[in-house]
Amino acid sequence: MKSFGQRLMQAVIGKRTPTMVGIDPRWASLPTSIKENRGSPLSADSVAEAYHQFGLAILDTTADLVPAVKFQSAFFEAVGPAGVQVLWSLARHASSLGLVVVMDAKRGDIGSTADAYAEAYLAPLPGETAPIADALTVNPFLGRETIEPFLKSARQHRTGVFVLVRTSNPGSADLQMEVQGGQTISSRIGSWVEDWSASSAGELGFGDVGAVVGATHRAELRTFRDAMPHTPILLPGYGAQGGSAADLRDAFDDRGLGAVVNNSRGIIFAYQSEKHSAESWKESVRDATQAMIADLARHTSAGNL
Amino acid sequence: MKSFGQRLMQAVIGKRTPTMVGIDPRWASLPTSIKENRGSPLSADSVAEAYHQFGLAILDTTADLVPAVKFQSAFFEAVGPAGVQVLWSLARHASSLGLVVVMDAKRGDIGSTADAYAEAYLAPLPGETAPIADALTVNPFLGRETIEPFLKSARQHRTGVFVLVRTSNPGSADLQMEVQGGQTISSRIGSWVEDWSASSAGELGFGDVGAVVGATHRAELRTFRDAMPHTPILLPGYGAQGGSAADLRDAFDDRGLGAVVNNSRGIIFAYQSEKHSAESWKESVRDATQAMIADLARHTSAGNL
Repeated sequence: MKSFGQRLMQAVIGKRTPTMVGIDPRWASLPTSIKENRGSPLSADSVAEAYHQFGLAILDTTADLVPAVKFQSAFFEAVGPAGVQVLWSLARHASSLGLVVVMDAKRGDIGSTADAYAEAYLAPLPGETAPIADALTVNPFLGRETIEPFLKSARQHRTGVFVLVRTSNPGSADLQMEVQGGQTISSRIGSWVEDWSASSAGELGFGDVGAVVGATHRAELRTFRDAMPHTPILLPGYGAQGGSAADLRDAFDDRGLGAVVNNSRGIIFAYQSEKHSAESWKESVRDATQAMIADLARHTSAGNL
Repeated sequence: MKSFGQRLMQAVIGKRTPTMVGIDPRWASLPTSIKENRGSPLSADSVAEAYHQFGLAILDTTADLVPAVKFQSAFFEAVGPAGVQVLWSLARHASSLGLVVVMDAKRGDIGSTADAYAEAYLAPLPGETAPIADALTVNPFLGRETIEPFLKSARQHRTGVFVLVRTSNPGSADLQMEVQGGQTISSRIGSWVEDWSASSAGELGFGDVGAVVGATHRAELRTFRDAMPHTPILLPGYGAQGGSAADLRDAFDDRGLGAVVNNSRGIIFAYQSEKHSAESWKESVRDATQAMIADLARHTSAGNL
């Protein structure tokens, strides 16, 4: 039985890059060709159908280049049940293309409610054979015990969990950098994560519990990497949120392993940059993905992959 | 424009009780009559259809007795997109019965992703006129700024937010309690909530941002109530989680206002108690609701309503 961390790192080795494409559809940012002829007034179902077409195109355009995709659940939930149906359909398509699928839903709750979220995303639905995602992002605010139901499902179904350790937003310090007993809240959560991952580490050294660490906190990355040697790190914040490849260097080991780097807007809406137009939007997605792969290879040890 | 807190308290006055019914369906606990003839092997769609039938019966059986219902999103998500469709359908039905609808989804994220969650639950979908819920539970772990997009939607659409301040589980103290400087994380979050609610308080004194405070922390309730005089408090943990009516007394003001008390399992699965049978499960739901209303009236100032 391979741990999620082992599978993720094998996928990174297979594609020779830790680049992760973030699928965060927003109606206002969709290429015109996707928005055309969706009816007026616009309905939630029409927006969901546009997200479906857009998401399929992104997946088909990038699947041969990257090891993993991350779906931001919020943007699909924002168009109601039809959006959730599309999210599931896209996640199934991503799996069929061989991509590692991370569901970024930041779920968290207590007891049997946490069990239910774990059943939703880390285990097969009743009557089905495969979970919808390979890993789920989890919010630890309710305490260590509330993450354990997710780990139980993950271990049973060979899926994984990414726990929020330090987020990339300016206000993340409000609660995460508070000190309890000489340790920040973030470093305490990091120590839980490392305990869990150390006990499930595979051949490449990574276990089934990852950490989300904002790529905007360069000075902290080395500390987190050193404190969590068996923990796969998910780095949001590259590109649009201001993180550069050089800022991420410390998240990787010498092999170029240990982290995956997400880019959402910078890839899926790349046509909005000066270099591209709405007519060639799929080409811009592919170009932006390749540019990010090259950027990470140049400025981090991902070049050793 | 009435604040959510004003509307909620008016509903409490209208029904003369702060009792909230929690809709947390679990296949294993459903009455036999609901589970019958759902097919074999069981599919996610079949389970979702059973939840629909069960939820409609609970709503129709309790709507004349209580001011509000709380839907636990996790249990619906656990049966996939069909479950989410049922959740939305039940929430619409609850609104049509005049119930205040709280979506307990504990969402939280940064920037435009928080906007998307707010659009999903606190604003109408594209092409629709009413939001799916009157209020949403929100996780504050990512920082004060990350709650603001929810407040913006709430104020625009006359909906509300319940921020997790102190949860009812044993491990909640891991991150929510004391930090350097003497204030607990929970009391800091409580002070944010009170600031927001004080600025939007209606005639009855309550604003549009509430607090979730676990009913299992009796000693803390008075402190939170005093520190958050304009804040509606949502108390989970009555019944199944060990909180008694007497434990909740300090959450109410002399008028019997200021809090709503949720009961999920103790009402919806009341047929499992000694006094009832699976044949009379709807009767048991009504009996358990009336017993809770009487219990709160006897042991708290809700008797003054």
